[in-house]
Parts: sequence; structure tokens; C-alpha cells
Amino acid sequence: MTSETDPRSVRSREAILNAARELLLESGPTAVTHVLVADRAGVGRATVYRHWPQAEPLLLEVMATVPMPFLDKATVPTREWLRRELTAIARQLELDDVRAVSTTLANTALWDENMDARRAQFAGILADRLAAALDEAQARGEVTLTLTSRNAAAMAIGPMYYRSTIERAPIDSALIDAVVAALGTWSTDR
Amino acid sequence: MTSETDPRSVRSREAILNAARELLLESGPTAVTHVLVADRAGVGRATVYRHWPQAEPLLLEVMATVPMPFLDKATVPTREWLRRELTAIARQLELDDVRAVSTTLANTALWDENMDARRAQFAGILADRLAAALDEAQARGEVTLTLTSRNAAAMAIGPMYYRSTIERAPIDSALIDAVVAALGTWSTDR
Repeated sequence: MTSETDPRSVRSREAILNAARELLLESGPTAVTHVLVADRAGVGRATVYRHWPQAEPLLLEVMATVPMPFLDKATVPTREWLRRELTAIARQLELDDVRAVSTTLANTALWDENMDARRAQFAGILADRLAAALDEAQARGEVTLTLTSRNAAAMAIGPMYYRSTIERAPIDSALIDAVVAALGTWSTDR
Repeated sequence: MTSETDPRSVRSREAILNAARELLLESGPTAVTHVLVADRAGVGRATVYRHWPQAEPLLLEVMATVPMPFLDKATVPTREWLRRELTAIARQLELDDVRAVSTTLANTALWDENMDARRAQFAGILADRLAAALDEAQARGEVTLTLTSRNAAAMAIGPMYYRSTIERAPIDSALIDAVVAALGTWSTDR
């Protein structure tokens, strides 16, 4: 029986991940240490070290448990799909755990290459999905883009991210509407 | 002679601030500890503790040394002033130290109320300056805003901040132009 299928090992692994997640949300990434995680999970430090010899991969795995299924599977009309998806992202960005994970990722990525790889993957998925949906919408005549589709993710998500993490104020529907309008001229406006 | 005017005390204070700044830029906020700062500054730990009993206010003071004089003193035509200011912000956001300070602020503000106060002050200054400049431009007939001037800072700075810290890619002039166009219909476009 390997440690990955040993029920006790699976249980301690889950307890450690839950404890690390609680600590991240309560006190930030600097609280995700072997000592504090072992304490909170009710396991010995040696158990934490056995599963995660370094603290950073544990933090990374905890952050990966926050789901980010945004901008997936575009539907027509694209403008309504986009407004729904951006509203969903806005609601997520107002959750403490998503704010904690996204700002931790942006900050730690500057010094940790594993974090940076996760940042790049996350940003790339969002940019690719949005660019594909907008290019298809333009091909269908739904919109004339006023920027390259490659710039769309920064233009669409950036204002909400800044509002949520720098201004720390609610993302109102007027900001979401302004973002949708900034991407292009929609055929229903003409 | 108080410690604030004692030349030796002034020198050690400056050495500590410089060391803390170097550590922040090299390794991130978690490296700004009493032990590492004393080591780098070439002073005893007791000296660091005497000036800064806690590490957080030291980090905050270091971050305050990075100047952020953006969007100050608007000139006419407002659109050209805005494009220049946004280009200046873009160039700053591409500097490692500004990226380090801004993402550290966004992240640590979630758990530290002093950091949060500085975040609020910083965001408030930018939002107020931009809103005032745009309201005046609209009153002069230079622009018809397509969003409330209160939403302008998120719309203008958000895409560049996201591009720089989440996508980690250059802020091209096309993105800056798209941002300026997103704020309103400029009279020179009509």
C-alpha cells in the first residue's frame, strides 16, 4: 500500500490542506508554515514535512483548490454570455478567498518560479478563452472589436481586479457594462 | 539630543531603510525581517528593534519611498495629458520595484490594517485626481464620459495593472489608446 492510498495518509493530507487553506484565508500566505499548519491540522510536524518538504508547494496546492472556471464555453449572443461571465468573475473577486489567492499569486510570482508558472497558466487560459470567443463573435458579425482580441482580457478583467484588490470597493453593473462596451461596437447598439 | 537628530542614529536608520528596500526588491516582503535587515545593513539586531519594534511598519515605510506622483496637475488638452500620464504609469508598472510594492500592498492590505490604510490612501488619490480632471474636461466640452468619473480610475489603470502583474507582459500603446477611448467620446474624434 503506497502512502497515496493508505487511508490514514489520505486523511492527514486532507487535514493539512484544509488547515493550510484556513490559515491562508485568515492570515495570509506567510501563515502557511509547517509549524502553524501542523498545529491547526492536529498532526505532527513530521507528518506535514513528509507530505510537503517545502511550504511553497503546499501553498500552491491550496491555491489550486479555489476553482476558476471562467469564460469557458462561450454561447451566443456573445454579449450576454460575456456580461454573465464578467458578473460571475466580479462576484468571485468579492470573495475573501479569491482576493487572497489572486493577490498572493501576483505577489509571490515575482520571486517564486512555481508561483509564476501558475500565474502564467491562469492568465493564459483566461486570455485565450476570451480572445477565441471575441474572434468568433466578430466573425459572426456580432461585434467590431476596438482592440486586438489579445488585449481583451486585460481590458475586461483588469478594471474589476483593480476595483476589487486596489480600490476594495464593490464592482457595480455600470463598470461591467463599461467594460463590455470598451471591447468593441456591438451590433445590437448600431 | 534626541535619537532623531543624533547623526549616528540617522545613519543607522537610513542604512536599515536601504537594506529593507533591497531585501523587498530581491526576495519579497517575507524577507523584510529584523534578522535579515540587520545583517544586510551591517547593524546589530537591537538597533533595528530600537527603530522599528515591529517589521510591518518598516515594510510600510520602505514602500512609501517609492514615489507615485501620477495624474497630478491636469493640463489641456486633457486627452493628451491623460495619454502621457497613463504612459508614465505604464512605464512605472514595468519596473520591478513598483510591481513589488503594488502587489505587496494589495496582498498585505487584506490582513494588515496599516497596509490597508495606505492602499486606501493611494487608490483614493488616483481616483480623485482622475475624476476631477475628467469632470473638468467634460465641463469644457472636451469629452462626453461613457462612465461615471468615479469608475474612471479602475477603467484606466486596471487594464495596465492586470497586464503588468497578472499577465506579466508589456503594456503596449494600443492598450493605452483603448483605455483612453473607453473613458468617453473625445471631441476630436467627432
